[in-house]
Amino acid sequence: MATLTVPAAVPPVADDVEQLHKAFEGWGTNEKLIISILAHRDAAQRRAIRRAYADAYGKELLRALGDEIHGKFERAVILWTLDPAERDAVLANEEARKWHPGGRALVEIACTRTPAQLFAAKQAYHDRFKRSLEEDVAAHVTGDFRKLLVPLVSAYRYDGPEVNTSLAHSEAKTLNEKIDKKAYNDEEIIRILTTRSKAQLLATFNSYKDQFSHAINKDLKADPKDEFLATLRAIIRCFTCPDRYFEKVIRLSLGGMGTDEEDLTRVITTRAEVDLKLIKEAYQKRNSVPLERAVAKDTTRDYEDIMLALLGAE
Amino acid sequence: MATLTVPAAVPPVADDVEQLHKAFEGWGTNEKLIISILAHRDAAQRRAIRRAYADAYGKELLRALGDEIHGKFERAVILWTLDPAERDAVLANEEARKWHPGGRALVEIACTRTPAQLFAAKQAYHDRFKRSLEEDVAAHVTGDFRKLLVPLVSAYRYDGPEVNTSLAHSEAKTLNEKIDKKAYNDEEIIRILTTRSKAQLLATFNSYKDQFSHAINKDLKADPKDEFLATLRAIIRCFTCPDRYFEKVIRLSLGGMGTDEEDLTRVITTRAEVDLKLIKEAYQKRNSVPLERAVAKDTTRDYEDIMLALLGAE
Repeated sequence: MATLTVPAAVPPVADDVEQLHKAFEGWGTNEKLIISILAHRDAAQRRAIRRAYADAYGKELLRALGDEIHGKFERAVILWTLDPAERDAVLANEEARKWHPGGRALVEIACTRTPAQLFAAKQAYHDRFKRSLEEDVAAHVTGDFRKLLVPLVSAYRYDGPEVNTSLAHSEAKTLNEKIDKKAYNDEEIIRILTTRSKAQLLATFNSYKDQFSHAINKDLKADPKDEFLATLRAIIRCFTCPDRYFEKVIRLSLGGMGTDEEDLTRVITTRAEVDLKLIKEAYQKRNSVPLERAVAKDTTRDYEDIMLALLGAE
Repeated sequence: MATLTVPAAVPPVADDVEQLHKAFEGWGTNEKLIISILAHRDAAQRRAIRRAYADAYGKELLRALGDEIHGKFERAVILWTLDPAERDAVLANEEARKWHPGGRALVEIACTRTPAQLFAAKQAYHDRFKRSLEEDVAAHVTGDFRKLLVPLVSAYRYDGPEVNTSLAHSEAKTLNEKIDKKAYNDEEIIRILTTRSKAQLLATFNSYKDQFSHAINKDLKADPKDEFLATLRAIIRCFTCPDRYFEKVIRLSLGGMGTDEEDLTRVITTRAEVDLKLIKEAYQKRNSVPLERAVAKDTTRDYEDIMLALLGAE
């Protein structure tokens, strides 16, 4: 379900490294060459390239890239080149430090990665920032959002398929009672959403629909402008339909007044090796236009080129 | 600093397994033989014995032990025989299910293990119980204790030596302000204690003493009967002086009306391979009597024998 395309015959790492070094040399940078290599290598191949580049030239590849390219193109290339766990650590740190109620990176990292992947991101966070993700979220986020986001990024959820159906029934009831009273920040809602396994939550949301004849997210739309409610809905959608969740983030990043490259880059770089093909299908279905065409319309130059390359455009 | 004694020449695993099988055979069980083997093998050796026993006799060693021995002796042998991470998972599950305000197993597991060991316990919890530690604690513990214990067992703390001294200064101030107002369950106290690294917390407690000329734990003794305050003090002592913390748990388990074998067994089995020597020294210093003698006085028979063996008695 990935969109990443890797050539049938991948050149030796030493050749890739030499080509990248050439792309940085002399007057001007050869952005096309950078994209033609990095945007067509998988995580393990990019890791090997980073290691070999540092060995050959005594300089980190990411630092060399940072010296040569700039702005949104730089951010896209660097995020993409990072290992998935490191990339999540960087995105989580960015959002924790300048947190705002509309931020979605923490929710996505906590709810669309497997528990093992989330843990790997936390290890990468320690290595890179010499602090824990939990303490940074707890120190920077405030109020109800803190009550929700700290446990959300902290819990090591069970990852198995086992479901307790009577628990799903009773916790669906608990959710409905609290939502009925508009007690959206209630401890019980937070406890259920932040600690139960994905399989258990899906059973709970299904039971909710069966018992109360609405999807839980419909009932969480009482006030469309309330960002806390929007965050609860995002959490639920990340578990129930990540492809449609990400489709919407991309749609909103492209539509309207100017493009939100931050969101677009985050979704494209984090999903290109995972499920971007499904997200593209969801986009085409919802917007009657291929995602590549929409992205090409709203972006330009090197940034456009790397986005399209990661989207698997021909 | 361990008390565990392993013979200079450890018999082959196959011999240990055969001897254990003999100890179970016929009328009566040879408890001395069980102790002479299991209480003198380290975690890796016990793991090898469990694997070889299951291979040789088609039955789990722990199940065979459970069929032969009973009561507090059984609990001690089985907890000891388990891998450290599995043992922590079992102890945490026991306490989460029948949680009471005086329980200390969750605090000890969250605060005296390294972050990597706590994570290993959580993985063992998934494997064994098909649920997460976090969800069980959140589902069974209530009120202020839930607000404290769920983040305490959830966070993956940073484990490095780096300390931010100005942060330590300001967070010591925050702790003092809240304690002064008797706002012991305040979100900020909980945030600091549950998310900061051990090194950072030690710096914060030192700064507290420097700024306010009391140890923080002195200021948390306003009401000696308040179990929430006692839990906060236990958390702090587990970070600052685990040997003296465990000495006190043992002292209280032995003194007074009857022996609390649950606490005694937990501390001896979890620390025998870690720091029980330091705990013994702390006990001798505080009580002017060797710990072995105090344990021998308050316990009997096979249970006494395994406790003394794990304590490294000659």
